[in-house]
Amino acid sequence: MSYADLDRTQLEELRRALEREYADHCAKGLSLNMARGKPSAAQLELSLPMLDAVNAASELIAQDGTDCRNYGVMDGIAEAKALMGEVMGHEPATVCVFGNSSLNIMFDLVTQGVTHGYLGAAPWKDLDGVKWLCPVPGYDRHFAITESYGIEMIPVALGEDGPDMDEVERLVADDPSIKGIWCVPQYSNPSGIVYSDETVRRLASMTCAADDFRIFWDNAYCVHHLYEERAAHVADIARACEEAGNPDRYFAFASTSKVTFPGAGIAAVAASAANIAEIKARVGIQTVGYDKLNQLRHVRFLHDAQGVAEHMEKHAALLRPKFELVDRMLEDGLADTGCAAWSKPDGGYFVSFDGMPGTAKRTVALAKEAGVTMTGAGATWPHKNDPNDSNIRIAPTLPPLEELEQAMEIFVCCVKLASVEVLLAA
Amino acid sequence: MSYADLDRTQLEELRRALEREYADHCAKGLSLNMARGKPSAAQLELSLPMLDAVNAASELIAQDGTDCRNYGVMDGIAEAKALMGEVMGHEPATVCVFGNSSLNIMFDLVTQGVTHGYLGAAPWKDLDGVKWLCPVPGYDRHFAITESYGIEMIPVALGEDGPDMDEVERLVADDPSIKGIWCVPQYSNPSGIVYSDETVRRLASMTCAADDFRIFWDNAYCVHHLYEERAAHVADIARACEEAGNPDRYFAFASTSKVTFPGAGIAAVAASAANIAEIKARVGIQTVGYDKLNQLRHVRFLHDAQGVAEHMEKHAALLRPKFELVDRMLEDGLADTGCAAWSKPDGGYFVSFDGMPGTAKRTVALAKEAGVTMTGAGATWPHKNDPNDSNIRIAPTLPPLEELEQAMEIFVCCVKLASVEVLLAA
Repeated sequence: MSYADLDRTQLEELRRALEREYADHCAKGLSLNMARGKPSAAQLELSLPMLDAVNAASELIAQDGTDCRNYGVMDGIAEAKALMGEVMGHEPATVCVFGNSSLNIMFDLVTQGVTHGYLGAAPWKDLDGVKWLCPVPGYDRHFAITESYGIEMIPVALGEDGPDMDEVERLVADDPSIKGIWCVPQYSNPSGIVYSDETVRRLASMTCAADDFRIFWDNAYCVHHLYEERAAHVADIARACEEAGNPDRYFAFASTSKVTFPGAGIAAVAASAANIAEIKARVGIQTVGYDKLNQLRHVRFLHDAQGVAEHMEKHAALLRPKFELVDRMLEDGLADTGCAAWSKPDGGYFVSFDGMPGTAKRTVALAKEAGVTMTGAGATWPHKNDPNDSNIRIAPTLPPLEELEQAMEIFVCCVKLASVEVLLAA
Repeated sequence: MSYADLDRTQLEELRRALEREYADHCAKGLSLNMARGKPSAAQLELSLPMLDAVNAASELIAQDGTDCRNYGVMDGIAEAKALMGEVMGHEPATVCVFGNSSLNIMFDLVTQGVTHGYLGAAPWKDLDGVKWLCPVPGYDRHFAITESYGIEMIPVALGEDGPDMDEVERLVADDPSIKGIWCVPQYSNPSGIVYSDETVRRLASMTCAADDFRIFWDNAYCVHHLYEERAAHVADIARACEEAGNPDRYFAFASTSKVTFPGAGIAAVAASAANIAEIKARVGIQTVGYDKLNQLRHVRFLHDAQGVAEHMEKHAALLRPKFELVDRMLEDGLADTGCAAWSKPDGGYFVSFDGMPGTAKRTVALAKEAGVTMTGAGATWPHKNDPNDSNIRIAPTLPPLEELEQAMEIFVCCVKLASVEVLLAA
């Protein structure tokens, strides 16, 4: 029965029942973590053979004769570029393979915009102020980067096809201080949506007042399908930008953090020839080079896009039951209350949950108190400030299935309790 | 016989003889490289067992229970901090272990000064201009970092005990725009000198007009001794700064790039508690974390400072004959000409060579033409501009002994020829 149809007496009765249930949960003294998008131990085991792919007896010379044990090659060995290029859908010549973190490459590129500017444009530090478009709900670590540089973040609604493009086009057309947009085009963090071809086309071709506007195309989940039969394929941002006459507008990113090992993966950036030349010049100041042995390790273990796809199917087999459990428990527990909505992603690492306005912080606090750590409420918005206080990111990947079930049971109870409290306070 | 004592006829005769010898060298069609401080293949083989120290069957959980295969721990696993702290002579609590490149940490810290400032001081981007002290001869990649931010570099003479401290003290006392100094305190790149205790004390205690002055203490060669019996030990910069009441003045760096594998090593920074807190806050925006599996690999292979010392003795056994060959050939070929001086380091990776003024570029060009690639003349000065055109960095580590001998024979011939040309042009 929809909570909206309950009268005050019924709501108070419901609250007492929920409080009793909640007290029972608290009494269990659980400690469960659904805060971050971390692979489970079972997923990590899938990549253990990679650690044997490079050993003391291995040939450690790259295709072009480079000794991967020594200095040299700042932008990635050719075979790693080929692998990441194929995975990302970019020409290897447009790809650099760097260290272990695509987030770090994004951070460095925002920094470059601040300190040096892109392709001859004024460094942002010399401007009166810089703004950035932030599709919401979005990824807290993206927002933390732009926040750390004092960049004003403008939330833009993220729909089923991507950001509200009418709004995006309107904003960038007139304001030269808007320098970029954060995008997770495939299985977006957290809502799991996939950018439509039309969204990609409009992003690539829209008129920007800023010549140095950049799409930060974080394709973190490009191979992270849950269902092969409905695997999403996002339009090629490089081609779209080129066809629109804006070849330098995008920086595309991916990593193997959730393919092999988080922290011990390899990360890549793809961009136009002009951007790549500038990136290489900068990185040549920054470091002598990245870990080529780890690049080699990845190439020998994953081989090519087909090898990655086969490996990702094993991840999917472990992840599908978790996502399906979350959906089933939300459906069973909350569908008829009318006070919740959630995403049903075909890939990625998250379920985006929307409760009634004013309930997210309370729900997360209640869950925490009962031993279930969720991502902080508001984290999906710039400055952690969700104006509706309704969105919660559910990260179901880390806990084993049994723990996930316990955690979701508690979460559902907390959502109900927070909702009833809000209705009673109205 | 000293070239200075030769008359014009003798010099012309000598030039003809040297030109014949040089032509013979060119005719050999060699291709030898002494440009960079790269370990040789034989040195790299010493660390091959490290690649087996972490494998598919390994325990991959750190001391504190962290799963090194997953996200988590941004500042290095405890055992890696203990290892690097002991090697660097710093308390593990003052150490962060990050990625593969100490140069990258230095770059990031200069960037932090530019964009955010240190510990509440004004970001350098907001100042009219920033200056930096650059002991010369020095490391070209250091100078490239400060150059990339448009920082004015002031050369300061590097003597046998370190930088000219009278000059350093005079400069920093009055000019608040001087924000830092590049230091390689042990087996300096390229001269191989070691900072005296008195130099360390004066650097730590000198009065600086800039509150946010920082010593960038690149202790790259802290364990890279050639002769154990005369192994240098540099005074503790952390304690010196603390005792002088300037605890935040230093950032100390080291890596295992020339201990295990260049590019696949681990790098660390040590600093005061306040600096480390600021570094962690910044790095927490920049990345989720570094490669903990590679940190674990290093700990399991090297164990502790004693393990590192034993490993470095094997490097020294391979390097000593090369440094001794270089010294012997310079001595035999050039000592009596009176037109050359060079360093005789007890560790590190380089020999610093000084020819007659006006000969360095010509010498390097002649060597290149004869198939021997040296570090570019001038590289040891800011903006690659050696005002005397006399200093050349010799990097004897990469070539096998036999090739090194060929290369040095050619180098000696080129030095002589360039010297005679200069004397004849006078």
